[in-house]
Amino acid sequence: MSWEGPFIAVDWGTTNRRAWRIAPDGTVEEACADTGGITAVRERGFADEAAALRARLGDLPMLLGGMIGSDRGWRNVPYAPCPADARALAEGIDWIDSRTGIVPGVCQPHPAAPEVMRGEEVQIVGGLACRALPPDALVCCPGTHAKWVRIEGGRIVRFATWMTGEVFALLSRHSILAPQLEGEAQPGAAFAAGVADSAGGDALGHLFGLRAGHVLGHPRKDAPSYASGLLIGAEVRAALARFGDTAPALVGRTDLGALYAAALAQVRGKPLPPGHIIDGEAAFREGLRAIIRELP
Amino acid sequence: MSWEGPFIAVDWGTTNRRAWRIAPDGTVEEACADTGGITAVRERGFADEAAALRARLGDLPMLLGGMIGSDRGWRNVPYAPCPADARALAEGIDWIDSRTGIVPGVCQPHPAAPEVMRGEEVQIVGGLACRALPPDALVCCPGTHAKWVRIEGGRIVRFATWMTGEVFALLSRHSILAPQLEGEAQPGAAFAAGVADSAGGDALGHLFGLRAGHVLGHPRKDAPSYASGLLIGAEVRAALARFGDTAPALVGRTDLGALYAAALAQVRGKPLPPGHIIDGEAAFREGLRAIIRELP
Repeated sequence: MSWEGPFIAVDWGTTNRRAWRIAPDGTVEEACADTGGITAVRERGFADEAAALRARLGDLPMLLGGMIGSDRGWRNVPYAPCPADARALAEGIDWIDSRTGIVPGVCQPHPAAPEVMRGEEVQIVGGLACRALPPDALVCCPGTHAKWVRIEGGRIVRFATWMTGEVFALLSRHSILAPQLEGEAQPGAAFAAGVADSAGGDALGHLFGLRAGHVLGHPRKDAPSYASGLLIGAEVRAALARFGDTAPALVGRTDLGALYAAALAQVRGKPLPPGHIIDGEAAFREGLRAIIRELP
Repeated sequence: MSWEGPFIAVDWGTTNRRAWRIAPDGTVEEACADTGGITAVRERGFADEAAALRARLGDLPMLLGGMIGSDRGWRNVPYAPCPADARALAEGIDWIDSRTGIVPGVCQPHPAAPEVMRGEEVQIVGGLACRALPPDALVCCPGTHAKWVRIEGGRIVRFATWMTGEVFALLSRHSILAPQLEGEAQPGAAFAAGVADSAGGDALGHLFGLRAGHVLGHPRKDAPSYASGLLIGAEVRAALARFGDTAPALVGRTDLGALYAAALAQVRGKPLPPGHIIDGEAAFREGLRAIIRELP
């Protein structure tokens, strides 16, 4: 099987899926995105789904990353342990057939600090490959389960997860605060107030004020942004304390990246350097290309 | 209407309801408890429910407290503002009829720190009336929305809410950690490990390890207790920082009181003095009796 020509890259997550036909020079020739994440696929339906992607994007080699390699995905692909780089990910590919492979996630098998990731490792090796990331760096990948990743010598050496995005979603959907949390969070005064109130490690002690203010007739303006500032502020403070107060590169969704950049600038007292927000989709595609270059 | 004889006391919450026939000397003559909280009662069904309670416990005067006085209850009873005591609660009763009254909650109308409570104020005036609480004290009422309350001169002067119980319930029911969080939290080694890891204000940064440890084949023993220790530990540390490092009296469910007592002993480095866990149901009944004594 030749990986010299175009190939299909798939970022297959829990709830969403993105796929691209990529030319040898990295150009995106065609793209599609839908809500066909792994939880939307019936048992044993993954081969059919892959065939449908090929029918749409071309009968080409296909490399997949993300939760598709988890116990709820197509195959439960064993994690590559830290330290990990593009070569380790290439060696750990689980081959469905000679032209369809699933990239492994990365684990930190330390019993006192167990960690796992699936998807962010592809973004990170992509950022390294295209030199958006230096070989020694701190990286933050915002998301449902935000990852903070220490890179040394071009390898992922350790990382930690904050469930910030999931906790925010739980509060927005299921908590007594749900009516106050309708709408999107965005940088600004309310977000900054939340980041400020996250000092002292007491983010959860400020949330109920959103309900009480509403009940007492003086609701806080832009409550979603305030709550987001509380939770992201708490994460940023804790992560900087754990990983050292350096400016992380932000890799992922650019809307989340803007919130994290605002929180980081506020907590550190200085703006992030230029180029510190890296688009996660582009990094993911570059990551699969870097892994392909390491194939034997 | 005479309140000299026996009366019916009702603690009517969001999901549960408890009612007692109480003799003039405070003895409980009959009791009932069910899941008929306010969210289980159809619109305009509260009068019928009250009649059913009288059919069961006696055709007697009835005093009610808790969420029954909220915008989702029988009447939206205006809060008594801090500072508040039994007399203020008596004056704020909303009379459905001459022998059926709903006790108000208490609010802290400060725009920068708005707070509301409904139910805990009755427990606190009860604890004060029977001298389980001294007139100057810090009180913690664990629960879905835990309250920390400063009492001065026998009055509620300020308080704050932590959504610890609700966040724990959200994680247990709806999060990726739900499979790991089945079962009851209890004091012990796992709970203590969670309290220890809550130092540094980073409780949310330790939760995902429960998932990663499970995935990597070395799950943490007694994960519900560890997670509970993380969240209660974070609350206790933050509340002591805000209200001063004094031993609070714990008023409420005795199982939650035991968890909070364990966390407080660990964080403060010394056990709570004897008598610092006060049964919330008994305190609630004493509170309604104290309010009745203040009726004109």
